[in-house]
Amino acid sequence: MAKSLSGAGLRGQVAGKTALSTVGKSGSGLTYRGYDVKDLANHCEFEEVAYLILKGKLPNKGELAEYKAKLKSMRDLPAALKEVLERIPKDAHPMDVIRTGCSMLGNLEMENDFSEQEAVTDRMLACFPSIICYWYRFSHDGVRIDTTTDDDSIGAHFLHMLHGEKPRELHEQVMHVSLILYAEHEFNASTFTARVCASTLSDMHSCITGAIGTLRGPLHGGANEAAMEMIEGFTSADDAEEKMMGMLERKEKIMGFGHAIYRESDPRNEIIKGWSEKLSKDVGDEVLYPVSVRCEAVMWREKKLFCNADFFHASAYNFMGIPTKLFTPIFVMSRLTGWAAHVMEQRADNRIIRPSAEYTGEELRSVTPIDQRD
Amino acid sequence: MAKSLSGAGLRGQVAGKTALSTVGKSGSGLTYRGYDVKDLANHCEFEEVAYLILKGKLPNKGELAEYKAKLKSMRDLPAALKEVLERIPKDAHPMDVIRTGCSMLGNLEMENDFSEQEAVTDRMLACFPSIICYWYRFSHDGVRIDTTTDDDSIGAHFLHMLHGEKPRELHEQVMHVSLILYAEHEFNASTFTARVCASTLSDMHSCITGAIGTLRGPLHGGANEAAMEMIEGFTSADDAEEKMMGMLERKEKIMGFGHAIYRESDPRNEIIKGWSEKLSKDVGDEVLYPVSVRCEAVMWREKKLFCNADFFHASAYNFMGIPTKLFTPIFVMSRLTGWAAHVMEQRADNRIIRPSAEYTGEELRSVTPIDQRD
Repeated sequence: MAKSLSGAGLRGQVAGKTALSTVGKSGSGLTYRGYDVKDLANHCEFEEVAYLILKGKLPNKGELAEYKAKLKSMRDLPAALKEVLERIPKDAHPMDVIRTGCSMLGNLEMENDFSEQEAVTDRMLACFPSIICYWYRFSHDGVRIDTTTDDDSIGAHFLHMLHGEKPRELHEQVMHVSLILYAEHEFNASTFTARVCASTLSDMHSCITGAIGTLRGPLHGGANEAAMEMIEGFTSADDAEEKMMGMLERKEKIMGFGHAIYRESDPRNEIIKGWSEKLSKDVGDEVLYPVSVRCEAVMWREKKLFCNADFFHASAYNFMGIPTKLFTPIFVMSRLTGWAAHVMEQRADNRIIRPSAEYTGEELRSVTPIDQRD
Repeated sequence: MAKSLSGAGLRGQVAGKTALSTVGKSGSGLTYRGYDVKDLANHCEFEEVAYLILKGKLPNKGELAEYKAKLKSMRDLPAALKEVLERIPKDAHPMDVIRTGCSMLGNLEMENDFSEQEAVTDRMLACFPSIICYWYRFSHDGVRIDTTTDDDSIGAHFLHMLHGEKPRELHEQVMHVSLILYAEHEFNASTFTARVCASTLSDMHSCITGAIGTLRGPLHGGANEAAMEMIEGFTSADDAEEKMMGMLERKEKIMGFGHAIYRESDPRNEIIKGWSEKLSKDVGDEVLYPVSVRCEAVMWREKKLFCNADFFHASAYNFMGIPTKLFTPIFVMSRLTGWAAHVMEQRADNRIIRPSAEYTGEELRSVTPIDQRD
């Protein structure tokens, strides 16, 4: 029987309503609650955008200060959670670590009632960087880090724990931009997982745990890691061009280009590309950024494929000294806002998500006694 | 704006293909790979059905013996997993425990490649009862149980660890039936979660962890627990009738009746009802079974609602001395087979599941500088 792919993956099928974002709507590539993501990335801190996504409006000065103080106060981890993280080996997949950390947190600080949904989300937003860095530093460096820092932002908190020192202002700024760019993206697979889970009226930790597991897949998160692995194998722009041409000829998969929804460009690319260039100059790089620019040119010339949000994130994170294996967990720290907001939206107007299937299996048959089976 | 529920929850929309089961197809209520669930429940052990669902055919005698021996050899838990379970408090939600146990297992025994998908599934099938009982007995009774027993079946292994003694043959038999009845049910919400997760090519532990979290919701799993809580509040059949009439009058939600897909009856009910009656006689019960039968009659008379698979499971499990809070984790021990088979099926003909949304939010607007916000 011929494979029928039309309609597969629910592509183009409306699976629900959202007021949270638009993706690829003409005139404005990506909007969060009506604001263009470029506008937000140019003028806001990540905490402002998290507030916007989770609570429906951009905070004023007082609200933002209060929100940041609240998040700052919730960075520490319960002892039992630290003990769990200490038992996860160094060679574990970091997405499995954050998935397990989130699930364990649900055992220790259960969402008893949906009235607690904003509180448990804020708690996750505050402590996910702690979970990632506590495990990473313990398993890789053998140290039990203090997960309470007085850094002003989530991004700075993360970099501080990772490197053991307060980050520079430029790096904190790039973290704001990066976390803003990854915060929300309509009904992508991980968000849709969170909504399906929410539709049974399950708890927030279950929804987020499921979304993390879905983001882990190489067709969804992880493209920035794959892009990094590729570009660090190139020694110069010319080397990159030569090797990419070979990859294209051999029809190898090249990550960080094109998008399931965007057709002409990914609005997030020009923003992160600009910051990657700034970081490149800052560290005196003469390889990674020119290599990345050449990759972009080759893919456009040869395949009319544009860089998506992930491609220049690879070099940007690398310039800030972030290990490649932590790229996708950063995505989690950010997208958590979108996931949680979608869960809240699903709960507010819920019907259990239970589609149908086309049956392609055996016709009705009888059980043969076990002695007579082949 | 009026709520539009038509098409909500993807009801009736085909989200993919499956050869695993049919639900509510006329003439045969529920089939697994073409076999009527009643036929399977009457003639097979659960391990035969798990083999059928996971490997595509009913095993012959040799295959079944080999499969059971294999599962038996994989019941023990890694030390690190036991240490994690010991850190989960007694008052945690048992579904959060098994979700966390599954996620932790993924850190310790990662699925490195899809060629390992059957092996990691068999491992989960063998050790999920161990995870549940190890936590339950440690947190509730303060004992570290041996999770390796020489019991012949998964159901017996579970009851043995729970009660500290080999189960009677009748109880082992009922566990076979119960695990068969819950094993697979097409594109229900938890299975669909597993498939969405699988569609990003994520690992098996992520898919199953997500499915567990979805099953946790009260609109999906948990109906047998809710039914138990209700019926144990009734002292006699007459008392049950009087109190149910009151509940109906007050429009209270009554769990264990009706179904999203079945319209006239749930084919699993008559089977588990028969076994509940047998267990009732066996223990000399004069309350719980007659109460359950009266509830069934009242709901049919008053609302034309039939018992679903969950209702008589409540009394059956209770007669076997299973604590109510472990009812849904038993569902996990069983449905794991269906979830994993759907993951394998999704992987074999994959397209990322990424639906669209209807946008209901704000029109494009500009970011107001923070000093000028309300």
